Order: sequence, then structure tokens, then C-alpha cells
Amino acid sequence: MRAKIDRADIELIKLLSKNARYTYKELAEILKTTRQRISRRMDKLEKMGVIKKYTVIPDFEKLGYVYVILGITFKPGTDVEKIVESIKEDEDVKIIERAIGSHNLILHIVAPKDMKSIEQKIHQISSKMEGIDSMDVTFITDIVKFDIL
Amino acid sequence: MRAKIDRADIELIKLLSKNARYTYKELAEILKTTRQRISRRMDKLEKMGVIKKYTVIPDFEKLGYVYVILGITFKPGTDVEKIVESIKEDEDVKIIERAIGSHNLILHIVAPKDMKSIEQKIHQISSKMEGIDSMDVTFITDIVKFDIL
Repeated sequence: MRAKIDRADIELIKLLSKNARYTYKELAEILKTTRQRISRRMDKLEKMGVIKKYTVIPDFEKLGYVYVILGITFKPGTDVEKIVESIKEDEDVKIIERAIGSHNLILHIVAPKDMKSIEQKIHQISSKMEGIDSMDVTFITDIVKFDIL
Repeated sequence: MRAKIDRADIELIKLLSKNARYTYKELAEILKTTRQRISRRMDKLEKMGVIKKYTVIPDFEKLGYVYVILGITFKPGTDVEKIVESIKEDEDVKIIERAIGSHNLILHIVAPKDMKSIEQKIHQISSKMEGIDSMDVTFITDIVKFDIL
């Protein structure tokens, strides 16, 4: 990492986390700077990978989708890297997070509301992963708050 | 809900989930329609609450932050609504999701990397919630994939 992250970077990311569609002009006005500086700073943060993505948080319920989170704990010595590679391309697995603590891997599945096919999907994913010690299945019913930063 | 969600809405939300900063012009070109139609459709989806938020996914590691997920299971009969209300304003609790299944409540905590204060935070949050049956603590080490839709 060449450049360092400063207070102004954090402020900018916080603003974008509230509304990723703010224009350069709006951001410049709020942060009392110029559009050019905002644009340059965002380019820098994107190139550094500090900003991974600009995205949308939908209401899955209203879309007719089910949002399921699988919290997976593997037996010690399991090659989680290899498992991640094997499921990375699965279109229904929307978010993959590696972790330590209660779970080693968290998978978010978003799919049309059809409990039978959701059950099959969970079975399909878990059956191709070796070394699972335990797996939690949680269905999100409501996103009450969402402030990433 | 007055209006219905159609295929074009889903396509538009999918595009925005890939890049929430697409301009109306870019969206119109990709979806072979006009800027006016895109703008009207997005207004509709925002008003309906189908689009809850446009946000950014940062690299927490690079920001020097720790990302912890608490998966909480309450004893039967617990008033989860009341508990949600009591923690909603906590600035360190960034994401609150109600759920059924293995957990009833999922809290995402994002805070500067300082394990001592993270521990205190987790203790502070859990000690003020009554009726906890069990709680999983998971530290996210890497977001491998993030496609919300």
C-alpha cells in the first residue's frame, strides 16, 4: 500500500456509505472541497482497494427473495481456501466471508422464495464441502439498520 | 404496495448492485432505454422501499477496522422488538438483522482495530440484552465475494 488513509478518506467513505450515489458536486459541497479533489480521492481509494464496491441494499422481502445466512465451522486442518474456490462461482452464493471465531466461513444465499429449492440449495452446497463440523442456518426476516461505516 | 415489481426492475437493481454509481446515461445504454425511464423507475423503487440504500463496501482490514458478527439466539418468548429498539442507536452496531432459524438477531459491529475495546463492546451489548440463550462471535477476516443480487 503506497498511500496512507487519512481522516478525509474516512469521512468520504462514511458519506458514500450513507449514499453511494452522491455526485462529486454534492460530496464536494458537504466536505467543503472541490469536485476535482473528490474525484481524485475516490480514484485513489478504488485503486487501493479500500473501496471494494458501490452497491445497493434491496428489500429482499419486497423482491420476493429469501435471504439465508450459513455460518459454517470446519474441523481443524480443513483447507478452507480450496472450499472457497469450489463455491465462488455458484450464482446463488452472493456473499462469501472468511472468518475466525464461532464460524470459519459465512455464506449468504439470496434466491427466489421457494423453500423447497432453498432446502435443496443448502443441501447441495453443504454436501460438496468436506470437513464441516457444524453449520448454522439463519433466515433474515428484516434488515432493521444498515450503516456499513 | 401499489406498483408491481417486474423483470426490468430486477435487471435495474442487479446492475446497481454491481455498481451503484452508474449514471442514468450508463444505465439507459446498458438496458437499452432512456435516461428518463431509468430515473422514473429508480424513483419508484426508492419510494416503494424496494431499494433501501445505495452504499459502499469498504475493505475493513485496509481501514484498520475490525468487523465482528454476533449471532444471537434468544430464549422463547423474548421481546426481540424491544431489544432491537434498545440497541438501534448504538453507533458501533452498524447492521441489525432480525432472523429466524439458528439465530434470532444478527448484529454487525465495525470498530477500530483494538481487541480490548471490541471485547468491552461485545460485553456491553450482550449484558444489556435480557433473554440471551446463546451467542456466536465471528470475526470477518476477508470478504471474498460480494454480489448482493
